[in-house]
Amino acid sequence: MVEFCVLFGGASFEHEISIVSAIALKEVLKDQIKYFIFLDENHHFYLIEASNMHSKYFAQIKEKKLPPLMLTHNGLLKNSFLGAKTIELPLMINLVHGGDGEDGKLASLLEFYRIAFIGSRVEASVLSYNKHLTKLYAKNLGVKTLDCILLNEKNRANALDLIKPSFNFPFIVKPNNAGSSLGVSVVKEEKELAYALDGAFEYSKEVLIEPFIQRVKEYNLAGCKIKEDFCFSYVEEPNKQEFLDFKQKYLDFSRTKAPKANIPNALEEQLRENFKKLYNDLFDGAIIRCDFFVIDNEVYLNEINPIPGSLANYLFDDFKTTLENLAQSLPKTPKIQVKNSYLLQIQKNK
Amino acid sequence: MVEFCVLFGGASFEHEISIVSAIALKEVLKDQIKYFIFLDENHHFYLIEASNMHSKYFAQIKEKKLPPLMLTHNGLLKNSFLGAKTIELPLMINLVHGGDGEDGKLASLLEFYRIAFIGSRVEASVLSYNKHLTKLYAKNLGVKTLDCILLNEKNRANALDLIKPSFNFPFIVKPNNAGSSLGVSVVKEEKELAYALDGAFEYSKEVLIEPFIQRVKEYNLAGCKIKEDFCFSYVEEPNKQEFLDFKQKYLDFSRTKAPKANIPNALEEQLRENFKKLYNDLFDGAIIRCDFFVIDNEVYLNEINPIPGSLANYLFDDFKTTLENLAQSLPKTPKIQVKNSYLLQIQKNK
Repeated sequence: MVEFCVLFGGASFEHEISIVSAIALKEVLKDQIKYFIFLDENHHFYLIEASNMHSKYFAQIKEKKLPPLMLTHNGLLKNSFLGAKTIELPLMINLVHGGDGEDGKLASLLEFYRIAFIGSRVEASVLSYNKHLTKLYAKNLGVKTLDCILLNEKNRANALDLIKPSFNFPFIVKPNNAGSSLGVSVVKEEKELAYALDGAFEYSKEVLIEPFIQRVKEYNLAGCKIKEDFCFSYVEEPNKQEFLDFKQKYLDFSRTKAPKANIPNALEEQLRENFKKLYNDLFDGAIIRCDFFVIDNEVYLNEINPIPGSLANYLFDDFKTTLENLAQSLPKTPKIQVKNSYLLQIQKNK
Repeated sequence: MVEFCVLFGGASFEHEISIVSAIALKEVLKDQIKYFIFLDENHHFYLIEASNMHSKYFAQIKEKKLPPLMLTHNGLLKNSFLGAKTIELPLMINLVHGGDGEDGKLASLLEFYRIAFIGSRVEASVLSYNKHLTKLYAKNLGVKTLDCILLNEKNRANALDLIKPSFNFPFIVKPNNAGSSLGVSVVKEEKELAYALDGAFEYSKEVLIEPFIQRVKEYNLAGCKIKEDFCFSYVEEPNKQEFLDFKQKYLDFSRTKAPKANIPNALEEQLRENFKKLYNDLFDGAIIRCDFFVIDNEVYLNEINPIPGSLANYLFDDFKTTLENLAQSLPKTPKIQVKNSYLLQIQKNK
């Protein structure tokens, strides 16, 4: 039985989602989780007793009474009157959604301190957290994405002039860096635009505009690469009204099983082929979820979730085995031997 | 007078370059540098006395006798018999080249612990450290780059089949993630390929093949954005024989002034326009150097150096003023207020 620790929380707009995500994962992995590590908005780490892993505890912010810990080489450092002590950690699951967790910061810290973890590495995080970069990345691999306009604080005043030559109403307005449908809205007419932009810019310095396609088919597929083979979840056809808002998605982790899409094998194969291209070697060590659109029988990537809610466990027929196999197939961070041959040479030449 | 601390070293193939880079910067900034912070290959931090900042000290690895420090909130943590103490840091200059410094890891740590620094942020680091991603990024902004073939451990056996349809000998073989010409070579005929690939794969999991253009014009331009204005260095025409190898570049920092390119104003303007596009908002807070090729009067990006050697100080007419102005114009990491409104709602609904 592989042991894990779960890292959750984070200075992120999806802080609460991560808490619920961790609580849901506890139900699935039970005693296999040795430590729950909570990261607060001030970037202090805390160990949370398994018995306290419920929404009431966090709703009342009881964790603030715990002693803060520091992330360090191979584990967590605890300072006490008796001196510093390192708590060694089993394999970590990074379950911090949005900022910190998905933007590459925690991946960097974990790699830096050589703490083994399941989750996207720094490059993979940056390319999936920034939705515009995801499009560049996908396109280069031959995976279709919707056209878009990228707005920033400087050109937002001319938003309509920038959008109009490319597409008509309705269109979707979304933060370029954020998950869980935060700040996303559909703009049906001009007068709704300013409000939609305000909402999106609240979450991100850049905002993406995409065409909104009525009744578009959506399919989600999670998976990971274990050695050289892919292990896929079943395909989910998400339940939606226009699109999932924050609250709906949030309540989503509590479900036991997601609705399985009723699609022909050929389409499932197409989704898998696109997933494989995107996963590449970049996402080695992570369970990711790719959200696709299907338009006129063509597959388009909507977005890559580098750390899906509760690791999308509800989409897998045998999640525990998948996770345990992945645990045996993590990418190694090579150890670099530094040299001082040139420094010695400078000395010799002096 | 702005005070700085300089972070150098790192678990990187360019570890020694960073040491020399820091020594050279000491000559320029003198007493403005309050602390020299050395990062060793095991990711321990050490404070180095200014009087020890010379190649002899590091050639003999004397720093190993110092007490290791930890990076933490706002500074460096020192553990002693008297308990833990935080050494507060003035504005940091990230001068770690290659791995750790340019791949986004240290940028992540510094942002995570809210330590103000001069240097590329995590997204900017990832996009410039990975040369293939740099090309995607540049192309999307309308900046030309040379065509390339990306090889990995899986397809390297078919390298020639992949290269031949695109370009003929000679071509350049370079690690996709590495700086300072490490592992770069020119392949003039088939029999040289295997050796060149071995050399490049030693530094990187992916290798880039580009056409080698004889007598191509090369121009380097450094700069930064201060508020909304760009501050540029003069244009350097690097001294080269085929291309600069590691040793040449290494010895390069010791020079006082680099050779100024004798080019028409129109070309200088073109280089600056390309630099501005690339710098964008992405590199806010950093002094970077863009290395360009000029082919048939067209400007091509060769690569972006997110942390150039000694911050390319030798290219600026007034480096100190540039650095001090940049210090006043650093991007802010927004503080995210986490909420617990949904957790409270779950409680209410129970």
